[in-house]
Amino acid sequence: MARVLTLAAAQLGPIQKAEPREEAVGRMVRLMERAHRRGAEAVVFPELALTTFFPRWYEEDVTAADRWFETALPSPATAPLFEAAKRLGLGFHLGHAEKTPDGRRFNTAVYVHPSGEVVLKYRKVHLPGHAEYDPLRTVQHLEKRFFEVGDLGFPVVRAPVGGQQANLGLLICNDRRWPEAWRVLGLQQVELVMLGYNTPSLNMDGRGFEAHHLRVFHSHLSVQAGCYQNACFAASVAKAGTEDGHELFGHSIIVNPQGEIMAQATSWDDELIVADCDLDMCRLGRETIFDFARHRRPEHYGRITAQAGSEAPPVWAPGERRRDAAE
Amino acid sequence: MARVLTLAAAQLGPIQKAEPREEAVGRMVRLMERAHRRGAEAVVFPELALTTFFPRWYEEDVTAADRWFETALPSPATAPLFEAAKRLGLGFHLGHAEKTPDGRRFNTAVYVHPSGEVVLKYRKVHLPGHAEYDPLRTVQHLEKRFFEVGDLGFPVVRAPVGGQQANLGLLICNDRRWPEAWRVLGLQQVELVMLGYNTPSLNMDGRGFEAHHLRVFHSHLSVQAGCYQNACFAASVAKAGTEDGHELFGHSIIVNPQGEIMAQATSWDDELIVADCDLDMCRLGRETIFDFARHRRPEHYGRITAQAGSEAPPVWAPGERRRDAAE
Repeated sequence: MARVLTLAAAQLGPIQKAEPREEAVGRMVRLMERAHRRGAEAVVFPELALTTFFPRWYEEDVTAADRWFETALPSPATAPLFEAAKRLGLGFHLGHAEKTPDGRRFNTAVYVHPSGEVVLKYRKVHLPGHAEYDPLRTVQHLEKRFFEVGDLGFPVVRAPVGGQQANLGLLICNDRRWPEAWRVLGLQQVELVMLGYNTPSLNMDGRGFEAHHLRVFHSHLSVQAGCYQNACFAASVAKAGTEDGHELFGHSIIVNPQGEIMAQATSWDDELIVADCDLDMCRLGRETIFDFARHRRPEHYGRITAQAGSEAPPVWAPGERRRDAAE
Repeated sequence: MARVLTLAAAQLGPIQKAEPREEAVGRMVRLMERAHRRGAEAVVFPELALTTFFPRWYEEDVTAADRWFETALPSPATAPLFEAAKRLGLGFHLGHAEKTPDGRRFNTAVYVHPSGEVVLKYRKVHLPGHAEYDPLRTVQHLEKRFFEVGDLGFPVVRAPVGGQQANLGLLICNDRRWPEAWRVLGLQQVELVMLGYNTPSLNMDGRGFEAHHLRVFHSHLSVQAGCYQNACFAASVAKAGTEDGHELFGHSIIVNPQGEIMAQATSWDDELIVADCDLDMCRLGRETIFDFARHRRPEHYGRITAQAGSEAPPVWAPGERRRDAAE
């Protein structure tokens, strides 16, 4: 009773600041053709896949960054993706900067049916970085300046992905580090998470001592835990390599519901990885150890939705009997 | 400005059904003496550390299992632990089955100050297994029969652990797989999680096809993700080896706030691992990428506390414009 979806993760090498959308789209169409030859039914492209990762460039006036945003999909520049999808019978996931007709800006991802219809749209909730120019940083990370927090929640939809009906959810980049995001998808029986990212190889905060060599580990750890704990597949797909002089760490992966890495990109260039994902593998976790209805205890999770930031705990004093220390 | 706590995880080899508490306590005192010689200031013992993992044995009448429960700490059998703590100046964490004066039963853990005073008590929230005899299982796992769900939430307290004031939290076994449990601790600025477990090497569900070889991976994955995503240390400590004919997988670990394993037990016997934990390492995560107040968006996490079980997602229909698919 296997429900096998042949899924491709299409990592992109760097897109330089001067590189026009048309050139990036041409590379993506070649990856779609390659995916088709390898038998894939759907292709996942990274976050902000059409341009350089522009939030590293400060603009005093936000509208000066409007050239990085899409106001319509398809557009003349992106139409070849939609044409290739139809021609090859391939669904595709596309991360892009979205500017709405009423002038709002989001870091957005869509999953597009081979027909060209948008099946699912998601707008990034966990925006990393900062809103103002930060002189201490060696590179800016201005997502909080250029984007609003997503307003669509974490939607899941049951839809055709390749030849299967799949419960599909989307996350974007920094979302993958937040177990809340995975759990909200899991509570909607997600079977497949498509997720793009642009993550620097080096910590550029300028203050910290975060170990550069742990950055790929942290990315994989978060995705593998998210898949295991929510019994789903994920395609976690990077832009990689040296973009505008700054290194992005790549290492795109496809992960199964046991948290195992099924395929991994190891170059810093355009690279396709493909895996056969049997969606029925999601059942084991959700019917046993992660049968949420039997095991979850929301009455003890109140802080997760009641507060955003953390609170200092009470201080223990010897001889003072506390309810949680006493019988 | 390092705040170094020298922490020991004291894995226990098997405790057979016939082995009296006094014998187990004797082994634990020897581990405490060993910990002291290695410079440790606090020792973490496993879940249900005083007896065999008795929830594998069905009892028609629950009270027939009362011999596995503690009605007081210390008791004549456990007094040597408290005496050793005082003599050696060692705090200790002890998992045990607790029967309260009013007859309630919990899977409980306490952290005890060298003075003998209980600093923090926790009662297991995520009880795995089942409440009734399951003829399909090769071994029973009757935690839901013998224990009530913990009623203390996930408390954190700032208390002396060795020479440091530490924000201390406790989890028990299956809790480690639930990101909600870690997050509730993280929202109280936990710096150190003590966690004991008894986990079989083999899947004994009798239905599934869970891969036995992934069980240690899943345990470590959950603890490493919990530490990384909440910027805390953890001592995750097993009962190990062949107990009553059933293998427990051991592999106790101490993990830092970057999710790295600092020390790992590799035997299936009584074994001590020790690590110097600089509690100031918790600051990096919580002041940058996991600065909850700046980055968390509880308005999108509603399902986590609003529902226990999962719900099926809506089905996509071509041509039907949905809010989350439309602009």
